[in-house]
Amino acid sequence: MENKKIILTGDRPTGPLHIGHYVGSLKNRVMLQDEYNQFVMIADVQALTDNFENPEFVRANILEVMLDYLAVGIDPQKTTFFIQSMIPEIAELTIFYLNLVTVARLERNPTVKDEIRQKGMGANVTAGFLTYPVSQAADITIFKAHLVPVGQDQMPMIEQTAEIVHKFNRFYGEVLVEPKCLVPEFGGRLPGVDGKAKMSKSLGNAIYLKDSSDDVTKKIMSMYTDPGHLRVEDPGKIEGNAVFTYLDVFDANKEEVAELKAHYQRGGLGDVKLKKRLNEVLQAVLQPIRERREQFAKDPAQVLQLVQNGTQKARSVAAATMAEVKKAMKIDYF
Amino acid sequence: MENKKIILTGDRPTGPLHIGHYVGSLKNRVMLQDEYNQFVMIADVQALTDNFENPEFVRANILEVMLDYLAVGIDPQKTTFFIQSMIPEIAELTIFYLNLVTVARLERNPTVKDEIRQKGMGANVTAGFLTYPVSQAADITIFKAHLVPVGQDQMPMIEQTAEIVHKFNRFYGEVLVEPKCLVPEFGGRLPGVDGKAKMSKSLGNAIYLKDSSDDVTKKIMSMYTDPGHLRVEDPGKIEGNAVFTYLDVFDANKEEVAELKAHYQRGGLGDVKLKKRLNEVLQAVLQPIRERREQFAKDPAQVLQLVQNGTQKARSVAAATMAEVKKAMKIDYF
Repeated sequence: MENKKIILTGDRPTGPLHIGHYVGSLKNRVMLQDEYNQFVMIADVQALTDNFENPEFVRANILEVMLDYLAVGIDPQKTTFFIQSMIPEIAELTIFYLNLVTVARLERNPTVKDEIRQKGMGANVTAGFLTYPVSQAADITIFKAHLVPVGQDQMPMIEQTAEIVHKFNRFYGEVLVEPKCLVPEFGGRLPGVDGKAKMSKSLGNAIYLKDSSDDVTKKIMSMYTDPGHLRVEDPGKIEGNAVFTYLDVFDANKEEVAELKAHYQRGGLGDVKLKKRLNEVLQAVLQPIRERREQFAKDPAQVLQLVQNGTQKARSVAAATMAEVKKAMKIDYF
Repeated sequence: MENKKIILTGDRPTGPLHIGHYVGSLKNRVMLQDEYNQFVMIADVQALTDNFENPEFVRANILEVMLDYLAVGIDPQKTTFFIQSMIPEIAELTIFYLNLVTVARLERNPTVKDEIRQKGMGANVTAGFLTYPVSQAADITIFKAHLVPVGQDQMPMIEQTAEIVHKFNRFYGEVLVEPKCLVPEFGGRLPGVDGKAKMSKSLGNAIYLKDSSDDVTKKIMSMYTDPGHLRVEDPGKIEGNAVFTYLDVFDANKEEVAELKAHYQRGGLGDVKLKKRLNEVLQAVLQPIRERREQFAKDPAQVLQLVQNGTQKARSVAAATMAEVKKAMKIDYF
């Protein structure tokens, strides 16, 4: 374990996870946990930055997210699950890092800028939101993570972390590890069943890992395809056709998918036939996940015990780093 | 102890304390410690916001400040001394409070605005500096302080704390106590020996509690008076005359001081005579302080033990508040 490189990853507990999370990160974590010392953070403090009026919601979703993790095969024997708010060292480190970053730099962070615009925050941007890249730098570096799996849109956050690491190490000595991005194989985003770019709870266009078999079928049968493809005999478009995007991601038989694409484009292939194929493929992926999830859901106390154990372990790692940090900063008084 | 109201006060450990601190706050603390449950914070984390390149300096001054506290008669039996960085709950609470304050509100904080201007920070304002009122709100409220002794210039900080308290209690229930300002009897600032408004280390115009008797005499004999008062027989000015400002503050015989003022204004009273009087008065105040300081300075380990004991006690109070905070926020998971 000790010689393995460290990976930090995680999710905000703001809802059950969907198949977009599965292909974008969860599947990778199942693979990475053998090769790396993997920490998976349930980022409740980060979730509170835009859910602070509604903490019950964050709380309830910790169990949901843990069930999804276990269901896909992230293994508590190999991976350390922990809850962010239970590691006070992260908050301590964040406070020190705030001195190493200018307000102007945070305001220029592309990810933060985009989100402020998307969420229409305007003049109501909270200090917590503006400074969340700093908090994220503390999450990553308190575990001395070498690698952080991120999508393209999150790369500026890792750059910001690297800047903080350089500045800290220059002032106080080489204590912190500079993390690198690990851009996953499937780096994109799975579109929603409505064809919209982002799968999200608020848009109601996501297929969840916990969805029943019937719900999955219903969602697939109503999926967005090519709005110009009205009759079976018409030629259809592949680009922007969510059913094909999903088949590309989930269907292992790439040759048959290529044939289906050709057939669809020249006409004579109906949406229903395609959707039935996708349904079969996706059900095969989701059924074992769903079954494991139901199994774990029978004993929520045991699931919470797993994250409690992981949190204890994560805390001891964080405390060791914090002791080094305080020593380097010369504020290890007693 | 339990029924006494709680006071929080403290200093940044950025140098030994001077007679401006003495009349502005230290003297009050000696009185307040009987009536109140007094916490005195050595604000090393706050000191690091503008001394982060130089932590040794902050470290070294913890002992200096503690010696000054003990020398003036702040009593570790009655007052709880503690070191800010050793209370991680303050950092945790700060992180949650950052969600309750907008960046725009912090940028409007008059104290912060003034300091940014005075220190010429411009575009280099760090996130730590901008958010220090939030950190201060956490310092105060983690101890459920009812009262915070502050000068006029610090009142906006307490207003900001009150806003955070209201917002927190509205969202999560009545957990936090709204602090009130305790504006001290001597609310102003003692000018430097050069007549400049602020007594400060960087200006070299301060009389320190640890100064030797000779140094105090030297500083007093070179004090700023009335630059137009060239000959003894000339009339002199009282306004802006630092010697009279000091006499007003330190000389118990108000009648004689009034007579001296009248004499000085009509002419015939020399600066040297006045300064000799001030020297006598100040030496009488400072001598017992200096002697006690020398006594305590013989055993630095014992002094640090006192702040270590206090920190332990403060930590248990902070931990109890944090447990309440997490319960109210519904993030008390296990």
